[in-house]
Amino acid sequence: MTSQNIRPRAREIGINIGVLPPGSLNSITDIPGIKVGHVSLIEGEGKLVPGKGPIRTGVTAIVPHGGNIFTEKVCAAVYLINAFGKSVGLLQVMELGNIETPIMLTNTLSVWTVADALVDYMSEQNPGVYSINPIVGECNDSALNDILGRHVKREHVLQALRNASETNVEEGNVGAGVGMTGFEWKGGIGTASRLLPGDLGDFALGALVLTNTGWAPDLRIDGIPIGNELTPDSYSHTEGSIMIIIATSAPLSARQLGRVAKRAAFGLARTGATASHDSGDIVIAFSTGNLISPSGKQSASPDEFVPELQLSFFFRAAIEATEEAIINSLLRSETMVGRDGITRIGIPIELVIAIMAKYRRNPRNQQLKKNNTFEKP
Amino acid sequence: MTSQNIRPRAREIGINIGVLPPGSLNSITDIPGIKVGHVSLIEGEGKLVPGKGPIRTGVTAIVPHGGNIFTEKVCAAVYLINAFGKSVGLLQVMELGNIETPIMLTNTLSVWTVADALVDYMSEQNPGVYSINPIVGECNDSALNDILGRHVKREHVLQALRNASETNVEEGNVGAGVGMTGFEWKGGIGTASRLLPGDLGDFALGALVLTNTGWAPDLRIDGIPIGNELTPDSYSHTEGSIMIIIATSAPLSARQLGRVAKRAAFGLARTGATASHDSGDIVIAFSTGNLISPSGKQSASPDEFVPELQLSFFFRAAIEATEEAIINSLLRSETMVGRDGITRIGIPIELVIAIMAKYRRNPRNQQLKKNNTFEKP
Amino acid sequence: MTSQNIRPRAREIGINIGVLPPGSLNSITDIPGIKVGHVSLIEGEGKLVPGKGPIRTGVTAIVPHGGNIFTEKVCAAVYLINAFGKSVGLLQVMELGNIETPIMLTNTLSVWTVADALVDYMSEQNPGVYSINPIVGECNDSALNDILGRHVKREHVLQALRNASETNVEEGNVGAGVGMTGFEWKGGIGTASRLLPGDLGDFALGALVLTNTGWAPDLRIDGIPIGNELTPDSYSHTEGSIMIIIATSAPLSARQLGRVAKRAAFGLARTGATASHDSGDIVIAFSTGNLISPSGKQSASPDEFVPELQLSFFFRAAIEATEEAIINSLLRSETMVGRDGITRIGIPIELVIAIMAKYRRNPRNQQLKKNNTFEKP
Amino acid sequence: MTSQNIRPRAREIGINIGVLPPGSLNSITDIPGIKVGHVSLIEGEGKLVPGKGPIRTGVTAIVPHGGNIFTEKVCAAVYLINAFGKSVGLLQVMELGNIETPIMLTNTLSVWTVADALVDYMSEQNPGVYSINPIVGECNDSALNDILGRHVKREHVLQALRNASETNVEEGNVGAGVGMTGFEWKGGIGTASRLLPGDLGDFALGALVLTNTGWAPDLRIDGIPIGNELTPDSYSHTEGSIMIIIATSAPLSARQLGRVAKRAAFGLARTGATASHDSGDIVIAFSTGNLISPSGKQSASPDEFVPELQLSFFFRAAIEATEEAIINSLLRSETMVGRDGITRIGIPIELVIAIMAKYRRNPRNQQLKKNNTFEKP
Repeated sequence: MTSQNIRPRAREIGINIGVLPPGSLNSITDIPGIKVGHVSLIEGEGKLVPGKGPIRTGVTAIVPHGGNIFTEKVCAAVYLINAFGKSVGLLQVMELGNIETPIMLTNTLSVWTVADALVDYMSEQNPGVYSINPIVGECNDSALNDILGRHVKREHVLQALRNASETNVEEGNVGAGVGMTGFEWKGGIGTASRLLPGDLGDFALGALVLTNTGWAPDLRIDGIPIGNELTPDSYSHTEGSIMIIIATSAPLSARQLGRVAKRAAFGLARTGATASHDSGDIVIAFSTGNLISPSGKQSASPDEFVPELQLSFFFRAAIEATEEAIINSLLRSETMVGRDGITRIGIPIELVIAIMAKYRRNPRNQQLKKNNTFEKP
Repeated sequence: MTSQNIRPRAREIGINIGVLPPGSLNSITDIPGIKVGHVSLIEGEGKLVPGKGPIRTGVTAIVPHGGNIFTEKVCAAVYLINAFGKSVGLLQVMELGNIETPIMLTNTLSVWTVADALVDYMSEQNPGVYSINPIVGECNDSALNDILGRHVKREHVLQALRNASETNVEEGNVGAGVGMTGFEWKGGIGTASRLLPGDLGDFALGALVLTNTGWAPDLRIDGIPIGNELTPDSYSHTEGSIMIIIATSAPLSARQLGRVAKRAAFGLARTGATASHDSGDIVIAFSTGNLISPSGKQSASPDEFVPELQLSFFFRAAIEATEEAIINSLLRSETMVGRDGITRIGIPIELVIAIMAKYRRNPRNQQLKKNNTFEKP
Repeated sequence: MTSQNIRPRAREIGINIGVLPPGSLNSITDIPGIKVGHVSLIEGEGKLVPGKGPIRTGVTAIVPHGGNIFTEKVCAAVYLINAFGKSVGLLQVMELGNIETPIMLTNTLSVWTVADALVDYMSEQNPGVYSINPIVGECNDSALNDILGRHVKREHVLQALRNASETNVEEGNVGAGVGMTGFEWKGGIGTASRLLPGDLGDFALGALVLTNTGWAPDLRIDGIPIGNELTPDSYSHTEGSIMIIIATSAPLSARQLGRVAKRAAFGLARTGATASHDSGDIVIAFSTGNLISPSGKQSASPDEFVPELQLSFFFRAAIEATEEAIINSLLRSETMVGRDGITRIGIPIELVIAIMAKYRRNPRNQQLKKNNTFEKP
Repeated sequence: MTSQNIRPRAREIGINIGVLPPGSLNSITDIPGIKVGHVSLIEGEGKLVPGKGPIRTGVTAIVPHGGNIFTEKVCAAVYLINAFGKSVGLLQVMELGNIETPIMLTNTLSVWTVADALVDYMSEQNPGVYSINPIVGECNDSALNDILGRHVKREHVLQALRNASETNVEEGNVGAGVGMTGFEWKGGIGTASRLLPGDLGDFALGALVLTNTGWAPDLRIDGIPIGNELTPDSYSHTEGSIMIIIATSAPLSARQLGRVAKRAAFGLARTGATASHDSGDIVIAFSTGNLISPSGKQSASPDEFVPELQLSFFFRAAIEATEEAIINSLLRSETMVGRDGITRIGIPIELVIAIMAKYRRNPRNQQLKKNNTFEKP
């Protein structure tokens, strides 16, 4: 059910979004130190029996660095595209500008169990600490999953954290992505990254998304109106949510990260999503380039700080990485049959390729990328 | 340990804060339909053994009305005085302008357990609903309580909801207030209310606070600098948090409630609190006068809506009720011995009375309250 | 210089953005009562002499209804995509949720003169009023215009207000749009509208934009990457700003208008814009369906209010109308030579048509619009 | 009319607010480099003839440092207590976290003229700059002044800037304060400062206020309910506005300054003000300790940055300095007769002293200030 290797990422089928180059993994793990781990829970089939199953859910851990996140917090910000959601811990991030635990993603009704387990995990590393702010994002997988059963348990959280690896981010039906829906196709986890122009410093920016949003006819891939020609046989106008995690190695301030986070919404918009009323569309952005001690001392030196004028490049990187991560999350997600036999089809790769070809989508003008910059090409 | 009747409320010792008259109970339950329930957990003594005790904590339920809160949501807003806190569910309130569950208060590290239990409670009443936004506020009672033990359990949440009553709000060391500290005295739960001038409609506004904040020398009661003359024998400059719940029967819009919530901070400021860096000071305001259906239809008629120009009276009511609720929370809280023998003394009533007398605090100019208005007295 | 009739709007060359139908004028003036007026200032040529010219600027008035806007204010909200800008009066809109003057657009350094003149205009209609909140938005036309000269004067403001008409919105190089730049082509004023599905009520939503933003290679028209193939001969990576005015006849609350305003950013994103650091990208949204008296009484009845669940349609309308208004602003703007001979070329219509054809852009799937709804087509 | 020396400041009559020590001038000019200048306009008397007078208004300049503010911007933040106001330029401050011009204060309807003049002033210093964000705050002096006459002219703005001096801040009926009302007494300009504990660095924080708010019976001076016993013979329940400028020499970030600015509201609350609906109560905070170049480079070194944990001291300093500045603004303002013979009485000093004595207000516990700290006294 998870033989994902047969489904390509966007670039593998010639879809090259934007003008900035991706990092070597084209993943949020291109940011040195970041680790991602998943636990996928897929059990049972047939009729929904709340509390029993079928289970189509999971949990994903994004670990900002290899140290103790509580004693070396990462500078962070939040942007609320649409705050119809249950995410945990974001208010403190908005006040203090930092994150002090890994970021977990899961289903809507499991956020509190996951938060509680994450506190256990951090608490063991930090004896004597009585205040910890766990960060948990969510989308609602009740279309496929017995969400009231709250099948994500403490041990799954700890396992996702243990599973976390720097090298490879599984995409599609993994972790929190198992039961999600994207543009009424199968959705899930996706990631992408961008390298900043070299004269800004040796910086990368990555996005990881949990896609559970979008109306089928709206889907655009790199602008091409896929949804005009290709929709699932049956679909409804139920739009969901998306969690977007943005990470960068550049030492941006919390205020600057807030500006970057806001641009992730532009990447979302380019896929055709509308952030409908009933969505919970939230962006969390953090920097590994400026660690913050519990007393609030920052590790970055002032020469390292990114002058405001250069933020436009980070904005662009956030837009491109978000757009590509969403497309990757669709391409990589296989068909999944969920509760009550409800099925989300993996978007048909060959048809996507054909429609892209029909629209004669060319590789983007290469001159723009000369010398790893895009000033006045 | 809870023979609270022997400790007076502010008005019982001649402290009459502000110019607007209180409701008959001088409590948040003066708003018709609102119920408050507590479960107090007090077990063990002596040395802290994380996970074992001693236990000095609890949970408090504020139930907005007697119906199904999910199908008849209350219009609501949030104001963040200082968002260094773990409260659950507030982002959705800020987006949608409503609350769809009772509001629970508890200790910092129990918010997720309580949220989870509250979802169970609402879920039973609303089968087929897969998205519920539980509201849980918190302060940190780790000074007295084994907070890592997370002793508040599902059954306590359900019991607090069952205990909820319209008639009588216990104050002091009850519910979430059991282990709290206020101006380095024993803190806890307090409440107060105000009647709006009659020509605005037959409206009341109430405040309920969970006091866990304040440096002893800063304490002011109705302006009098109590903290100049009276502090506990030993105290440190550790300041905590406060949760302030504001409720009104008037059909204010979410935007208007946001403006009212902001004024609760003025009531807090008048007690001498400074909302120090490490506090989590949060105001949640709601109206029972305009119920909202799941599709978003409002129950209030336009004639009932409060014209913006009259909001100043609600601002004043929020300031006065908050200030008095905080003072009540201190006066009503008895001495409590917590973990490791750490003790919070109930503020000595006789000394408070003596200092107030020394400063010749007179009853406020009565002419201001003539005819239940305060226009041009 | 303003023989604009020869340049088409998007729909006239087969570019049909989105799924909702436009109003009869496809303009913000499809909202009954709204009037738009321009004064264009085009004088001199050659070298810039600050204070003398050349002058390439103007002022545009958007008048919400035919009455006294101060005594019948319109419910309103603001969304700040990027607040690097000098717009006047927005803070009060954010606090009170209404607008009490016409909305004026002009160049960056003329906003204060225009605000002052607008106060004169309103003051004459409202003797005895000593507090008026003029609303003025801006973009920076210094690329073509002697902006330091502040050539927009009091009389131009009054004339734009007098010029305002319900029937016809001139687009392109008119009013505030005279000196603007869009995706490094000539930019300016554009407008578009959408009808909401009939079962929501007989409502329309319109957008009017002042386009001064965008990097040439980024331009997308209805998804098609025009900027990949077509850029001006010489261009720099200077990105500017955009003002987006959204109006609807539906009686949305200020909170709801805020949510709608946020979606206008999605329309902007779809054109390829990135809201770069140095842009000032601001959305002002208002409703003519709920007028507010100076004391704050609302005119709408509760049955008229739009239930939250239906907001998704307004979101979509805002996205589509904004995207189309921006494209119209480019298509309708003729080549303009400004100060120091700096020239902005009107985007070549024939080449746009050819590129769109090359990408075989088809009219959008018509089944989606059947019965004026887009539920489950 | 301005023989102000006969009226004392708070400390001169034994009113010592708070626990932190004031700077040597007890003024915002205790922050090295800050200069304040006033131009007062007092002409005519008798019946109001709009456009003619009587004139009771002015303009005040707060100059952050002696250099070019545009090329060495000061880090800054804004907090909106109540945004019913016309202040100019604040949105850009909120986005970018800096201020690039002096801050001017004036009457409500002169803000645009003043902004325009301030742009002239900055423009001359910065040729070739076509985007400048002037900062102008306001309160409404129409109770005494012919506000529609907009008597503050370009030359007054330039003169206030030239008048600016580091050494001495005039208080009361000067500059923007000429026509203001405070707690229905004569209001105007006030200032105060606090020194931070020495182990934080050699830092000061100052406040300058323009007081035009408050209902007479609400006035509290250092907690004592002056308004209970002392009100003007005739007063109405018209509440106005306040502008609060906070400055510090410590290199706080914009996010940190935002937190500090929020605490200024606590100082306002302690005076009895309620931030009524129709007030425009706004706080602008800036730091001279971290200058920012046009490209966004910061001057401060990381060792200089204030760790978050120490912000509580800045919060306290902001509360105390704001409270004292407001009291100074009342004490220092002489009786003023304005348009139509409307009179605002300078609060009677002897009666204030007598009431304070009656309440036996003692000097605050001196032990708290030992060693210039207030840790665990």
